[in-house]
Amino acid sequence: MVALGGGHGLAAALGAWRRLTPELTAVVTVADDGGSSGRIRREMPVLPPGDLRMALAALAGDDPGRQEMARLLQHRLGGTGVLAGHPVGNLLLTGLVELHGGDTVRALDAVCGLVGACGRVLPMADVPLDLVARVETVDPDDPARTRTIRGQVAIASTPGRVRDILVSPPDPPVHPDVLAAIAAADVVSLGPGSWYTSVLPHLLVPRLRAALAATSARVVVVLNLEPQPGETDGFSPEEHLRVLQAHLGGVALHTVVADAESVVDRCGLLSAVRECGAELVLAPVAAPDGSPRHDPARLSAALAPVVGAR
Amino acid sequence: MVALGGGHGLAAALGAWRRLTPELTAVVTVADDGGSSGRIRREMPVLPPGDLRMALAALAGDDPGRQEMARLLQHRLGGTGVLAGHPVGNLLLTGLVELHGGDTVRALDAVCGLVGACGRVLPMADVPLDLVARVETVDPDDPARTRTIRGQVAIASTPGRVRDILVSPPDPPVHPDVLAAIAAADVVSLGPGSWYTSVLPHLLVPRLRAALAATSARVVVVLNLEPQPGETDGFSPEEHLRVLQAHLGGVALHTVVADAESVVDRCGLLSAVRECGAELVLAPVAAPDGSPRHDPARLSAALAPVVGAR
Repeated sequence: MVALGGGHGLAAALGAWRRLTPELTAVVTVADDGGSSGRIRREMPVLPPGDLRMALAALAGDDPGRQEMARLLQHRLGGTGVLAGHPVGNLLLTGLVELHGGDTVRALDAVCGLVGACGRVLPMADVPLDLVARVETVDPDDPARTRTIRGQVAIASTPGRVRDILVSPPDPPVHPDVLAAIAAADVVSLGPGSWYTSVLPHLLVPRLRAALAATSARVVVVLNLEPQPGETDGFSPEEHLRVLQAHLGGVALHTVVADAESVVDRCGLLSAVRECGAELVLAPVAAPDGSPRHDPARLSAALAPVVGAR
Repeated sequence: MVALGGGHGLAAALGAWRRLTPELTAVVTVADDGGSSGRIRREMPVLPPGDLRMALAALAGDDPGRQEMARLLQHRLGGTGVLAGHPVGNLLLTGLVELHGGDTVRALDAVCGLVGACGRVLPMADVPLDLVARVETVDPDDPARTRTIRGQVAIASTPGRVRDILVSPPDPPVHPDVLAAIAAADVVSLGPGSWYTSVLPHLLVPRLRAALAATSARVVVVLNLEPQPGETDGFSPEEHLRVLQAHLGGVALHTVVADAESVVDRCGLLSAVRECGAELVLAPVAAPDGSPRHDPARLSAALAPVVGAR
């Protein structure tokens, strides 16, 4: 089982998948340039650690010591200085990468050991990526109808819909363990998460897309619960899916999971899913408190029949 | 067994004591205001972590995983930015202290668990300390014969001998576990280390000095191999001892360990040791490569008969 994504969305997916399989690999976006990750990648030549850290914390073992370690990874330093806001895990992972001469995968495996992870965390590329997007202008006085915006933060904070997106460098190296995990997987999942900055980027990396096109794994897409401002304003679930479909490039989709409550136009979504050649699973997967987050327990209940587990 | 000190000197002492006892407690100076520790204590209200981190690394378990964790604690972040030079362990310990609501001892015990420490590391006081020293002026044009200098870095970098030294605040709180460890100890050691900034400060904290005066433990002093520029320029071993004696305030000295090669005037040292009511152990305890460091194996061989171990 391989879960692709980034951020909170991937953490929710991992929270679900870890209940269904003992062999779980997270393949995590390395295109973040904001917050602590952005500060770190501007200071030293490492992959942005933030999404990797969140995946590591999501896979931490259940016993109190492992959970304390996960909380430490997620804990952001306080105070009023230059360290404020850095999650300890970002600094720890960065230090381990340096200690191992730049070997990110070895460092990730070491942190997996520290938190007793029920799975493995790997980066989607071996070099830091930048996202470059064409964004529709919303300022009526702007003579340009689209603007090219570079960087995840800039894309997310530019008002207007993303028209298309690519990664830079365009064909980054991908670790052989990532390709091997995808080739050996029974199930590969995409999403949920920031659609343009955590989900699509995996399909924009040629070596990753080729591996996804070649695998015999069932490909499962978990749609978001609601649009994301500045990225997918006003996007319905079927529009999310159509954007994804436009970037598949030979990757087959088998199952699309959507939250039953979040779908307004069931017929529209069903026809979009069928156009992809996939089956639709509608289930209550949102958090019961009404927050726009996937609930790991509910999501795993929805995914169990899909992957033949119980 | 309780070892008092700070920095590389304490790390060497711990490297020796851990070979002789399974019950080892390090009581570590918290007066550093330089380097990474200084930057951290200026940013947030925590104890300076550097000396604590070094003691934790010195007590790390022998197996490869624990030793890798110790190397990670000691690893200084690279790059060209504001993170450069911070040892990962300082940031990790600081994060754990914050996570535990300021409970430094709980955070230290957690790191001890991470590195599989053969002992415990405790701070000499529960609040950050500042050292304040009266330093002899060396500039012949300076009308003052002494200057009052505040802060460990300033004291170490001010030319001229330290005349006397005190801590601020003058009567800081000391954790009950520190007092209990000293009361229960069979042996307490002081030094080696920066004499005025890592060894004497323990005697300047009233509650710590009272515990040392009341304990029935054998008190062992390990003298430095050579004087330290800016602190103890030109100090012979017996002068180190006389400075210590002047600060004992009721604390008994039982054994003084000095490197056989480093002592020029054996008679002078012997008479200084006898004045303290102590016995002198002269042994080859310096590193065999000629560097001015204590060799943990040699030091432990010298200490074994003193404490009745083998």
